[in-house]
Amino acid sequence: MKCILAEAEQERHYPTSYLVNGVMQQNPERPERIAKLKAGALAAGLKLERPTEYGLSAIAAVHSPEYLKFLEGAYARWRRIEGASPAVTPNVHAPRRGGAYPASVVAQAGYHMADLACPVSAETWESALWSAWSAIHAADLVRHGERAAYALSRPPGHHASHDLAGGFCYLNNTAIAAQRLRETYARVAILDVDLHHGNGTQEIFYARKDVLTVSLHADPMRFYPFFWGHAHERGEGDGLGYNLNLPLPRGTKDDVFLANLDIALATVKAFAPDALVIALGLDSFEGDPIAGLGISTKGFAAIGEKIAEAIKAPTVIVQEGGYPCEELGGNLTAFLSGNYN
Amino acid sequence: MKCILAEAEQERHYPTSYLVNGVMQQNPERPERIAKLKAGALAAGLKLERPTEYGLSAIAAVHSPEYLKFLEGAYARWRRIEGASPAVTPNVHAPRRGGAYPASVVAQAGYHMADLACPVSAETWESALWSAWSAIHAADLVRHGERAAYALSRPPGHHASHDLAGGFCYLNNTAIAAQRLRETYARVAILDVDLHHGNGTQEIFYARKDVLTVSLHADPMRFYPFFWGHAHERGEGDGLGYNLNLPLPRGTKDDVFLANLDIALATVKAFAPDALVIALGLDSFEGDPIAGLGISTKGFAAIGEKIAEAIKAPTVIVQEGGYPCEELGGNLTAFLSGNYN
Repeated sequence: MKCILAEAEQERHYPTSYLVNGVMQQNPERPERIAKLKAGALAAGLKLERPTEYGLSAIAAVHSPEYLKFLEGAYARWRRIEGASPAVTPNVHAPRRGGAYPASVVAQAGYHMADLACPVSAETWESALWSAWSAIHAADLVRHGERAAYALSRPPGHHASHDLAGGFCYLNNTAIAAQRLRETYARVAILDVDLHHGNGTQEIFYARKDVLTVSLHADPMRFYPFFWGHAHERGEGDGLGYNLNLPLPRGTKDDVFLANLDIALATVKAFAPDALVIALGLDSFEGDPIAGLGISTKGFAAIGEKIAEAIKAPTVIVQEGGYPCEELGGNLTAFLSGNYN
Repeated sequence: MKCILAEAEQERHYPTSYLVNGVMQQNPERPERIAKLKAGALAAGLKLERPTEYGLSAIAAVHSPEYLKFLEGAYARWRRIEGASPAVTPNVHAPRRGGAYPASVVAQAGYHMADLACPVSAETWESALWSAWSAIHAADLVRHGERAAYALSRPPGHHASHDLAGGFCYLNNTAIAAQRLRETYARVAILDVDLHHGNGTQEIFYARKDVLTVSLHADPMRFYPFFWGHAHERGEGDGLGYNLNLPLPRGTKDDVFLANLDIALATVKAFAPDALVIALGLDSFEGDPIAGLGISTKGFAAIGEKIAEAIKAPTVIVQEGGYPCEELGGNLTAFLSGNYN
């Protein structure tokens, strides 16, 4: 299997802090994640490959033009504001949107950022772009015949909706890969095993029945992203019944997670997908700094094996969360031990 | 005319800072506003009167139960979070709301706060409550026969919608007064002359035709509240045609403001209201620290006179914005020089 990564470009984005409980804290979504994950992929026997530059069309198939324009240009516009913070940081939001799109970068920041955990600095656009291209490249390898490919996408993507950044995410790499697979395959399933609900991914496909979205995650009632990821969210319109959320109690360990994974996989199998995207968060690890669930390294091996065994469709694995800790690389190695031959 | 105020209680709320362009800045909505405005009201010959305690029913006629519960209890819950900031400050927002209401105070803060300019501290609920009671008291004086009454409501209210705080506002005193007037009068008009669009007031009555909402303000395309206040917003459903926004270029002076006021007043007259609420912001003053429009002290006298002359219906004047500067009290005196006999 190949590991797709543009290492230098994807490392440049370096968000230093984010607001939590009214106080600025150190951001765990740091460049060093890449070295740890790369080591884990190499240890699993994957071969590194650099993505091609894919331009914007596969990204614009998922994200709105005004959002992409904002992400690309916001930092330069922000720097023109006297006394502004180093990175673009929103302070006015649009909980209910009218028909108007504001002209000022301050208001556009509030319009396009769901929270204070997605600052845009000078390097953000470049890193997000290459992170998405890694996912597109992995999708294309699969479209051209590989059984599976791993995109070391960083920054992550699954909290980003078609026009919203949030939770360390800018471009939704998972959704972009799934949409890219749709160019070849009629039915694509997304299975999100990140600690957090993949709310951006859910929203992008919420009214569609050609892309199934399934997510296991810590119960959002008291956990990010809070407003979405509940069991009653089942899709809408054509997509009703094509979204499944399996919220889990905080601290859930391997056994309960794996039992819920069986439910998730039964739903994916019943959908009979032509291709699968795994949104792979490793932050459900018992030792992750975010400390939401209690999955062990052995647990990740079991999760990886179960998925590889249950779903034989061509598979793209897209990196989502998982934050600096000693075992981060090892957890990826464990997950990738599933049999993709 | 009477000036309604619970001075000690309304002064307690003291927001020290708010986030602007990613940087914490001093909040201009400070308690000292009250002394300046009171002096201005007394200089205009008004008599001070303390509001009665009105309980919650007139407030709950405008705001949702979960929002009121949040405002009342959020501070105590926030204090239990280790290492949290002194005042409740949101960091995760809900740009698109699903059907779930989160349980954690952090998420509820994001759900109920549109921006970072409405921190809730220990005294906020008490001050907001008395500010609303001042507006209710003024409405009741008018319902019982007075030609006009002035509520020195502080904190202000017109950016607060039925379930959202924002822009220094918590309870929408203007909307609460208008709804209170509806118990006696069939048709109530609201005329908002604050520097900023009264987006909360607009939203509360947007689908109703019994309450007309008219607002003159700095063009929101590059000015707070950004997302609302545009000319194309005309109401919806039953309320279509019952909302009028007159956005003005930054720096607009007396002459252009007064010409637009004529348009506003012609619309109010055509609605033939049984009662009027004036949302009186004095931050359109040329010397206001927010520096958005260029109205002079003489301009405020002309605005006050024009309204008093054009609309002879019983009138409640509710204080909205207007920030500490030497002329703040004098501008109120000027506005109140209109003939309300």
